Amino acid sequence: MDEVFIHQTAEVSNKAHIGKGTKIWNGVQIREGAVVGENCVLSKDVYIDTLVTIGSNVKIQNRVNVYHGVTIEDDVFLGPSMTFTNDLYPRTFNKNWKIVNTLVKKGASIGAGVVIVCGTTIGEYAMIGAGSTVTEDVKPFALCVGNPARQIGWVCKCGTKLGKKLTCCDCGAKYSLQNGELISYG
Amino acid sequence: MDEVFIHQTAEVSNKAHIGKGTKIWNGVQIREGAVVGENCVLSKDVYIDTLVTIGSNVKIQNRVNVYHGVTIEDDVFLGPSMTFTNDLYPRTFNKNWKIVNTLVKKGASIGAGVVIVCGTTIGEYAMIGAGSTVTEDVKPFALCVGNPARQIGWVCKCGTKLGKKLTCCDCGAKYSLQNGELISYG
Amino acid sequence: MDEVFIHQTAEVSNKAHIGKGTKIWNGVQIREGAVVGENCVLSKDVYIDTLVTIGSNVKIQNRVNVYHGVTIEDDVFLGPSMTFTNDLYPRTFNKNWKIVNTLVKKGASIGAGVVIVCGTTIGEYAMIGAGSTVTEDVKPFALCVGNPARQIGWVCKCGTKLGKKLTCCDCGAKYSLQNGELISYG
Repeated sequence: MDEVFIHQTAEVSNKAHIGKGTKIWNGVQIREGAVVGENCVLSKDVYIDTLVTIGSNVKIQNRVNVYHGVTIEDDVFLGPSMTFTNDLYPRTFNKNWKIVNTLVKKGASIGAGVVIVCGTTIGEYAMIGAGSTVTEDVKPFALCVGNPARQIGWVCKCGTKLGKKLTCCDCGAKYSLQNGELISYG
Repeated sequence: MDEVFIHQTAEVSNKAHIGKGTKIWNGVQIREGAVVGENCVLSKDVYIDTLVTIGSNVKIQNRVNVYHGVTIEDDVFLGPSMTFTNDLYPRTFNKNWKIVNTLVKKGASIGAGVVIVCGTTIGEYAMIGAGSTVTEDVKPFALCVGNPARQIGWVCKCGTKLGKKLTCCDCGAKYSLQNGELISYG
Repeated sequence: MDEVFIHQTAEVSNKAHIGKGTKIWNGVQIREGAVVGENCVLSKDVYIDTLVTIGSNVKIQNRVNVYHGVTIEDDVFLGPSMTFTNDLYPRTFNKNWKIVNTLVKKGASIGAGVVIVCGTTIGEYAMIGAGSTVTEDVKPFALCVGNPARQIGWVCKCGTKLGKKLTCCDCGAKYSLQNGELISYG
């Protein structure tokens, strides 16, 4: 199914670009200059701000806010009611406030209700537990939870938490640690 | 007033069942196979997923997400912008992900902005403080707060926090502890 | 531009009062008796309850809930998906529950995803970090973060965090401490 589906209650700017196969559900708003990739799902009431770029095969659950300055790569999961930000020191009367960028890299998953403070990068295939507040960069494959979010382990590309042997007990994928970073070696 | 009220902007599947006296407000979405009991209130933009079962006299505040796999018993209060989940290890590319169930038992109250990690049971008349993240089972009458949520006391059926004597200073109800569980004895 | 803008999908009670120059965006709901000041922005899906009073030049981001009992003064910033509350011990079957008031004073900023427990006052120009849960009063100019929110410093009226000298390294404003309170002296 290559067509774009847009629910009748969604408002998609005619200056946004939506990739084929993408589904846009109830009450979604997509603003001018936004680019959404192919085969994405944008669930109820999602908000995509001006000039945001979203990759392909991205699943965005209900009520997520993706603000100007945020970039979402392919295969990312954004859980329900999580939100991004783009202003570190918001004041309603600051006319010259600076947008601070945020990057979510390929395959990362962000849990329900998470808040991402802007200026951070979420590494490839990282997983942020539900209810967390992210205030600093997250390494690839890292599992982080809490407020502020702290790393408590590593996750496989398939989503399973890794034990000390760094071989996935579910899919069998193997990893090693090099200078504090997790590396996949098949 | 026995009729169902459905605001004109709500989308209720004709394969959902809504009990009499229930009110469904602005922008609510109720999907196929969902069952909602009698005399409930579903406030602005609430989302009820496929096959969810909700009891009677349940009050669901603005923006709550109730996902497939969640069961809500009678007399439950779900605070504004709280959310459920149903996938412990979300990956956008996992085609065979398993829905993990969650149960909220009779009379429990869940505060504003709470996140409930799936696989948990919230006991009867338990109360979860606003802003908490629940990651494990909650005992009946337990008062839990924080991220992760921890028990800090007990609450009466009427909602008042209980002191050491386990007699409610507000309504006079009496309780005792048996094997770490609070028991009501009138 | 002195006219009020109301998006066609917003529902504004004809018993609410909206000040000139205020913009009301997609899916916003404003109920009877609410008073919103001049030159405010109410973003996607914001909910303003009955009898709420909101000052002028207030910016309310997507999905904020402002409940009966909450008062918002001029120049306040309410971040995306934050929520207020108005019931300390919610029970769905409590017919005589008491509304507990909350006050956000002039110029304060509340971050994304914050939950404000009712009965609190947020002081002038205070700043609440994203993802926090506020359970007690916040002093003027205080910077608070976490769950529960704790003060970690002071912020200038312009939004910049103050160092030990209490002179803003950005705008040059000067402050002093008197009896534990920050005082601006130009």
